[in-house]
Amino acid sequence: MEERVEISILLDFYGELLTDKQKDIMTLYYNEDLSLGEIAELNNTSRQAIHDTIKRCQKSLMDYETKLGIRYRNDKASETRNFILEKSKEIKNNIKDTEKVLVFIEDIEKELIENL
Amino acid sequence: MEERVEISILLDFYGELLTDKQKDIMTLYYNEDLSLGEIAELNNTSRQAIHDTIKRCQKSLMDYETKLGIRYRNDKASETRNFILEKSKEIKNNIKDTEKVLVFIEDIEKELIENL
Repeated sequence: MEERVEISILLDFYGELLTDKQKDIMTLYYNEDLSLGEIAELNNTSRQAIHDTIKRCQKSLMDYETKLGIRYRNDKASETRNFILEKSKEIKNNIKDTEKVLVFIEDIEKELIENL
Repeated sequence: MEERVEISILLDFYGELLTDKQKDIMTLYYNEDLSLGEIAELNNTSRQAIHDTIKRCQKSLMDYETKLGIRYRNDKASETRNFILEKSKEIKNNIKDTEKVLVFIEDIEKELIENL
């Protein structure tokens, strides 16, 4: 995935752990697509200072993910959701076939127990 | 839930955000059930210092949960898992009743879409 999108997702999950100022700068850069120069002007500081803040925050966000894995857990839950929705569609398409329905139900139970 | 159990759960989720020393003290107190005096002796410090560390870490762990809600997300996922496992049991118990099976399947899909 593009790093920009990656950081924007981590910002959603871990933004509350940054200071208000850091969160503000990261949001302007990653979600509102302002340039370093524009953010520097808004904050009455240098382009370099904004650049440094962004790099430091990127590292913090990636460290939080390494330590806490909220994004990973979230992705796994989405996979489980999609897997079960797929199976439920199959059940509806094969509703008269008791044998098949039972196999799909076993698949759902296995997925839930192993991955959620 | 008893505060002791509550903090022990938060320690599992957020322990990586504490320093090694803090994590060590919290683990001895909450998971291995050592007394303040015993932990103080192991760390060559006072009972009061250990007490203060524990109080400070308790607050940090609760703050992390307020900001990130990993424990809350985890509880919600468990509820969803149990709900669907219950429905799958119902499906197996009513496998010949197509109408009923379809209703249970709708319940499962609704749960996944709304809560996972």
